[in-house]
Amino acid sequence: MTGGKGLFYLNYALTHRMHAIAVSKGALVVEGKKLINLAHQHNKKLFFSGATAAALPTVDLFEYNLAGCQILEIEGVFTGTTNFILNDMLQHECAFAESLEKAQAKGIAEPNSSFDVDGWDTAAKITILANTVLGAEVKIQDIPRQGISHVTADHIRDWKKENLIPRLVGFIHIKNQQIQTGVELRLVPANHPFAHLQGSNKCIRVLTQEMGELVVSGGASAPLATAAAALKDFELMLKTGC
Amino acid sequence: MTGGKGLFYLNYALTHRMHAIAVSKGALVVEGKKLINLAHQHNKKLFFSGATAAALPTVDLFEYNLAGCQILEIEGVFTGTTNFILNDMLQHECAFAESLEKAQAKGIAEPNSSFDVDGWDTAAKITILANTVLGAEVKIQDIPRQGISHVTADHIRDWKKENLIPRLVGFIHIKNQQIQTGVELRLVPANHPFAHLQGSNKCIRVLTQEMGELVVSGGASAPLATAAAALKDFELMLKTGC
Repeated sequence: MTGGKGLFYLNYALTHRMHAIAVSKGALVVEGKKLINLAHQHNKKLFFSGATAAALPTVDLFEYNLAGCQILEIEGVFTGTTNFILNDMLQHECAFAESLEKAQAKGIAEPNSSFDVDGWDTAAKITILANTVLGAEVKIQDIPRQGISHVTADHIRDWKKENLIPRLVGFIHIKNQQIQTGVELRLVPANHPFAHLQGSNKCIRVLTQEMGELVVSGGASAPLATAAAALKDFELMLKTGC
Repeated sequence: MTGGKGLFYLNYALTHRMHAIAVSKGALVVEGKKLINLAHQHNKKLFFSGATAAALPTVDLFEYNLAGCQILEIEGVFTGTTNFILNDMLQHECAFAESLEKAQAKGIAEPNSSFDVDGWDTAAKITILANTVLGAEVKIQDIPRQGISHVTADHIRDWKKENLIPRLVGFIHIKNQQIQTGVELRLVPANHPFAHLQGSNKCIRVLTQEMGELVVSGGASAPLATAAAALKDFELMLKTGC
C-alpha cells in the first residue's frame, strides 16, 4: 500500500485552496495524519467517510455525534467480507474455502482475498481511525493482526456448542494516554452487540467517558452506499466548509 | 405540554441574532417546526441533541451521518424508563407495579410515571423528529399511542415461551410522501436489534434508500450524558454556525 495517485490528488487539492473527499483507503493509511495536518495548515477540510466502512458511520461519530467526549475504546467488525464468510460457515458448518468461494461468486470477496481475510482491511481502517481521529502515529505493519483463513468447520461446531460467535474484530484501546491496537478473531457470546450482525454487515462500538457506550451497526457493503457516503461528505463540506 | 419558558427563551434567542441549544422537549413538541423555520429566517441554528434521547444520537443521524439520504422508516426504543421496567419484568417475571417501584427507587422513573409509561415521552420524541427532521406537521395528541402499564407477569411468561421480547416502540414510516406515526408495544424476536437492549438503554433504527439500515444503540439515561449532549451541540455550533 503506497497511497498511489490518490495521495497525489489529495496533497494537490489541500495545498491549492480546495477541500478534499477521499473514498479509498490507501492514501489515508500511509499518510492520514500528515493529510489532516496539511488540511489544518491550509484551513481546508479533508472528508473520508467513504474510506472507513462507507455507509457505516465511523469518522462522523467522533466528529459529530461524540464531539467533545473522551474516547476510551473503539472496537468493530469493519470488514463485511469476513463477516459474510464467518456467517456462512456458521450457518452451513462448512469449510473456510467453501464460504470464501461463495463470497467471491457473489462479488463480495475480491479474487485476491488476502487483503480481507488476513485482516489487512480491518488493520487499514484501524490505522486510519487511530491516526486521524485520535492523532496517534500507528503504522499498519505494526498492528498485531489475525485473519480467519485458519478457521475450520470443526472450530465452528465446537464454538456453536458453547454459544460463541466468531467475529474478526479491530480494536483501539486507550489507557493512560497510551494507544493499543489490534485485529483479532474474537469469540463473543450471543448477547454481544457483534453477535447478531447479518450477512456482510458491519458494526462499531465506542466507549466514552461522558456518554457511555454507543453501538452502530449497518452499512452492508454496496457501491451505492459508498457513493452515498461521498455525496454525504460533499453535503457536509457545503454546510461546514466555510 | 405548553412549551413554557423554554419556548420564550428559544424564540427570543433566535429572533435576536443568537444560535440556540434546547435540552428539554416541551418547546420543541409544541412549536418544533416553527422554531426551525424561525432559525432559518434569521440565518441562525437551533440545536437540540439533548432533547431527543440525549446521549443516543437521533437528530445528528439525519443532519450528519445520513445527510442527503432518503429516509424510509424511523423506529426506536426512545424511553429508557419503559425499557428498564420491561427488562426488569422479563428478568423477574413480576408485576408491572413492582418493576415501576424499582425504577422509581433508582431515580430512573419520575414519581408521576404517566409521561413515560403511557407512551407520552416516546410520542414527544416522535413528534419532534417528524416535525423538525422530516418537516411534517404532526401533533402529539394525534399519534396513536400505547403504554406498558397493562402488561402482566402472565403476558411476560407467555411471550418468553415464544421467545418474544416486549419493547415500547415509537415509529415514523414514510410511504408515497405520506407520514405514518405511532407508539406501540411490539413483540420482537430474539435476533431483532431491539431485543438485546440492556437496562435503560435506548435504540434507533433508520432505513434509508441509499445506505440501507442503520441501527444505533446506547445512551443510557444519565444527567452527565444529557449535559454532554448539550456541550456537543455547543461544539458543533462553534464548528458550523458561521
